[in-house]
Amino acid sequence: MWHLYHFPLCPFSRKVQLAMSEKKVQFELVRVYPWNAPDTFQELNPAGRTPVLHDRDKQRVLVDSQAICEYFEETEAAAPLILGSAAARAEIRRLVALFDECFFADVTGPLLQEKMKKRLIARQSPDSRTLRDAMRLAHEHLDYVDWLIDNRRWLAGAQLSLADFAAAAQISVADYLGGIDWSGHEQAHGWYRVLKSRPSFAPLLKQKMEGIPAPRHYADVNA
Amino acid sequence: MWHLYHFPLCPFSRKVQLAMSEKKVQFELVRVYPWNAPDTFQELNPAGRTPVLHDRDKQRVLVDSQAICEYFEETEAAAPLILGSAAARAEIRRLVALFDECFFADVTGPLLQEKMKKRLIARQSPDSRTLRDAMRLAHEHLDYVDWLIDNRRWLAGAQLSLADFAAAAQISVADYLGGIDWSGHEQAHGWYRVLKSRPSFAPLLKQKMEGIPAPRHYADVNA
Ligand SMILES: N[C@@H](CCC(=O)N[C@@H](CS)C(=O)NCC(=O)O)C(=O)O
Ligand SMILES: N[C@@H](CCC(=O)N[C@@H](CS)C(=O)NCC(=O)O)C(=O)O
Repeated sequence: MWHLYHFPLCPFSRKVQLAMSEKKVQFELVRVYPWNAPDTFQELNPAGRTPVLHDRDKQRVLVDSQAICEYFEETEAAAPLILGSAAARAEIRRLVALFDECFFADVTGPLLQEKMKKRLIARQSPDSRTLRDAMRLAHEHLDYVDWLIDNRRWLAGAQLSLADFAAAAQISVADYLGGIDWSGHEQAHGWYRVLKSRPSFAPLLKQKMEGIPAPRHYADVNA
Repeated sequence: MWHLYHFPLCPFSRKVQLAMSEKKVQFELVRVYPWNAPDTFQELNPAGRTPVLHDRDKQRVLVDSQAICEYFEETEAAAPLILGSAAARAEIRRLVALFDECFFADVTGPLLQEKMKKRLIARQSPDSRTLRDAMRLAHEHLDYVDWLIDNRRWLAGAQLSLADFAAAAQISVADYLGGIDWSGHEQAHGWYRVLKSRPSFAPLLKQKMEGIPAPRHYADVNA
């Protein structure tokens, strides 16, 4: 059995959960906070980051959300998420990197720092200027999602793919932290509501980070 | 013909150059500075980052070094770089992410900021504390390379892989910027000298960033 080391607001762990659920690969969640992790976690991943996927019996350890998703893409035929021609697959991976790296650096990362880490670790209040910047950049990213959805059925093209799940994973964490304002983003909002309604998304909407309440609309699939 | 948009000290563009050269895929270099790029570059990659690979005739654009490397892995049979079982391939991708993300965030990124961007853009001198931190973290990463090379023939296992090229790409940029001190890192140093001697590496050792001289040892394959 796979054990996924994660914390509820880690967007990369969410991406892995979505991909594994879509592919119907079983796993159990193990909660770990990278900033306060036991040595046993550091031994599984010297980089000290979530997600880590561990199969104790078979002594297998997988590290890095993209390495994990590529692994299941190669080993599980069901529900392909990196699909199509080589060019189509490159487009999926471009968008995954855009959300994993740029959306995270601009939006999710600063929100986690200001609204989660500062509260839980340093017991400080968030810096309002950093929050404003993150929300402004969130609008720019959502503009790009609007544009994609104006031109394509799903983010990377005609098919639902890992790009949609990577993007929705980041957005769901930003939304939990009050950083998403859908006004002016009809297309992006419609796309997100469809993803939020998938069975694979339901467990994410239930996971709570202690000490950080989610806004009321967060878990409402119609909101 | 592929055109690779890069600048000489972009480690991700170096990784792509190495992978394409190993696979004997032809390309021409186009120099671009992401912080001062023409609109035409932004149109190729809305994220505004290097590397971007463009084939004008066939109207193909590939963005993100890992998406590019995976693309050639799928389309070129020669010189496999993400090779072996699914587990072996996951290990290669874990290490690529470790160097692309953690080594870059700890070492290459701060060195580029302090020694390249501050000099070229802001005409400021580097912050010595940030440089000290980057060099300390470089030692920690090189300790890990030592450990890997103590236990394996190449970074990810018995075979030369993209992990070696991703790591060497980052290290070569840090070395250009004076951030690598090999003392106490016999194994890592031996491994790097072997990579540096490969024909695919020779063009990188000749590329110069205007206004930023490389230290004498940088291009010496015996140093
Ligand atoms: N590219 C990695 C990113 C992993 C990552 O950055 N994880 C964060 C949590 S969201 C982490 O563990 N950071 C270390 C820390 O917070 O101390 C992946 O996709 O798995
Ligand atoms: N994950 C991306 C990273 C690309 C990246 O961060 N590129 C840097 C240059 S090293 C960049 O263009 N940054 C924007 C800037 O410097 O303005 C890749 O592997 O291609």
